[in-house]
Amino acid sequence: MSYDTQFTESSFLQQLFHYGLLIPSTVQGVYGRSGTFEEVVTAIEARITSIGCDQQPEVMRFPPVMSRSTVEISGYMKSFPQLLGSIHSFEGTHKQHSPLLKAIEEQEDWGEHLASTNLVLTPASCYPIYATLSGTTLPGPGRTIDVSSYCFRHEPSSDPGRMQSFRQREFVRLGTPDVVDQWRRLWVGRGLEFLQSLGLHALQEIATDPFFGPGGRLLGASQQEQELKFELLAPVNSNEPQTAVVSVNYHQDHFGSKFNIVTHDGQVAHTACIGFGLERITLGLFRAHGFILAEWPAEVKHILWP
Amino acid sequence: MSYDTQFTESSFLQQLFHYGLLIPSTVQGVYGRSGTFEEVVTAIEARITSIGCDQQPEVMRFPPVMSRSTVEISGYMKSFPQLLGSIHSFEGTHKQHSPLLKAIEEQEDWGEHLASTNLVLTPASCYPIYATLSGTTLPGPGRTIDVSSYCFRHEPSSDPGRMQSFRQREFVRLGTPDVVDQWRRLWVGRGLEFLQSLGLHALQEIATDPFFGPGGRLLGASQQEQELKFELLAPVNSNEPQTAVVSVNYHQDHFGSKFNIVTHDGQVAHTACIGFGLERITLGLFRAHGFILAEWPAEVKHILWP
Repeated sequence: MSYDTQFTESSFLQQLFHYGLLIPSTVQGVYGRSGTFEEVVTAIEARITSIGCDQQPEVMRFPPVMSRSTVEISGYMKSFPQLLGSIHSFEGTHKQHSPLLKAIEEQEDWGEHLASTNLVLTPASCYPIYATLSGTTLPGPGRTIDVSSYCFRHEPSSDPGRMQSFRQREFVRLGTPDVVDQWRRLWVGRGLEFLQSLGLHALQEIATDPFFGPGGRLLGASQQEQELKFELLAPVNSNEPQTAVVSVNYHQDHFGSKFNIVTHDGQVAHTACIGFGLERITLGLFRAHGFILAEWPAEVKHILWP
Repeated sequence: MSYDTQFTESSFLQQLFHYGLLIPSTVQGVYGRSGTFEEVVTAIEARITSIGCDQQPEVMRFPPVMSRSTVEISGYMKSFPQLLGSIHSFEGTHKQHSPLLKAIEEQEDWGEHLASTNLVLTPASCYPIYATLSGTTLPGPGRTIDVSSYCFRHEPSSDPGRMQSFRQREFVRLGTPDVVDQWRRLWVGRGLEFLQSLGLHALQEIATDPFFGPGGRLLGASQQEQELKFELLAPVNSNEPQTAVVSVNYHQDHFGSKFNIVTHDGQVAHTACIGFGLERITLGLFRAHGFILAEWPAEVKHILWP
């Protein structure tokens, strides 16, 4: 039986709830995950570790929050202001506490009682790396880093493939332009092969980021012309491969220059990353192979749990 | 060689950086973790799974953000307003984008350009459970839930045992008062035995929460008198067992009543939880056994990696 044709777009999320794989909340795009869902995520992560181990990456894990200065330096608010989650806290005295509680009780917006902290939610798992390596000189061969974290993007949606809070596993390459360009082309192929090995109907596309505002179209066109962003698409919320489950981005000297990271011979470092959307790949597997893990094809299970 | 005596309080964090176990950021209490640090966290989690498996808990995993309504309903802002992280985002038009960018460029506070979202950072990993079970009737034996997530508390500190963003693994028991009370007493003992099996100099204490404001002392005294909170302390940032690495909380009918959760016979459900501070236990192990994982005592390694 093929599961490809039995969903309408709106019902996939309902089915995920029905089978207990996702747990609803009162907010679109924010869900709990079942133990079974997490088993698949863990297996996907282990497989990604395995296909990246020839790169001998340095492992770094960051929490879901990062320094506000990292978004200020990177220029994130120029391109994607609508997506950021900024963290605000109450820093008042006991006297200021009462008006805060009154606002909550009267169901008013109580945000004005809070102040900006020096933290934001991490928008993509590689951002903390650039801040960490800020002001450093790379060794001769450059560096390759393995990173994974919860990311946040403020874009409420009923598409389970577009969560506000989701995990991204990334490999990040920093080095000279030729090394980095060659590396990301290698990984487009590796990513596609990985998805296809899991029985996903995946294909590769040159893509653009959702830049904000009227200038966004121009930025997107330039990004596309230079082939800086590849997406690997698979069916998640529809029968067509329309969801970017993996994304490969060549930042050229953007982060190297903003964060003052240089190569061994004194050039501004180039960077690229491949990001695996862990929830999206997991959801793609449930769409492709059905909601009952035990009934998945043996060859897929063998790859995930060798 | 005993590692117990070689640190001053301020140097433990520096040593963790020096050995590459934690990665500094520009914000106190927000650190990256090395692959080795994460190996220990993963092993601790597996061990906790194992000691809880006789309870046959339902596994739920939540992201690091949750609905704002959950803190509003729970009364969190009455008791701990200073700790919450509230998520704000830019919801303006292209015209409003320019003043935002100008504020960032001029290094002004740009929080006023953002609006409250309907999300906050999860302050303790059990909160999303009460919202999930809101309005439900428990089965006869009640429910036991296994939950784990990144939590956030806005309390910048140079003590590595007091991170702003950290993971908490919890078992949560919901049921009749006698069942829940008995359960949490069982788990105080189990928690202590677990910590001691890892070679930690752990002890148990009746504790209080850091309630806000002048009324806080009274709330704390009442909590202490009723023995509602036990902490299991171990050495983390000093040679003395002063850090609560595990916390066992009896909420009585607080969450059951706020979230309208009832037992099979129609009483308001009581709840209790045991929370394992994953970073704190990991840090306690590095303090007790040294910074080189390979040199840890064989019996400790055997428990973590059986």
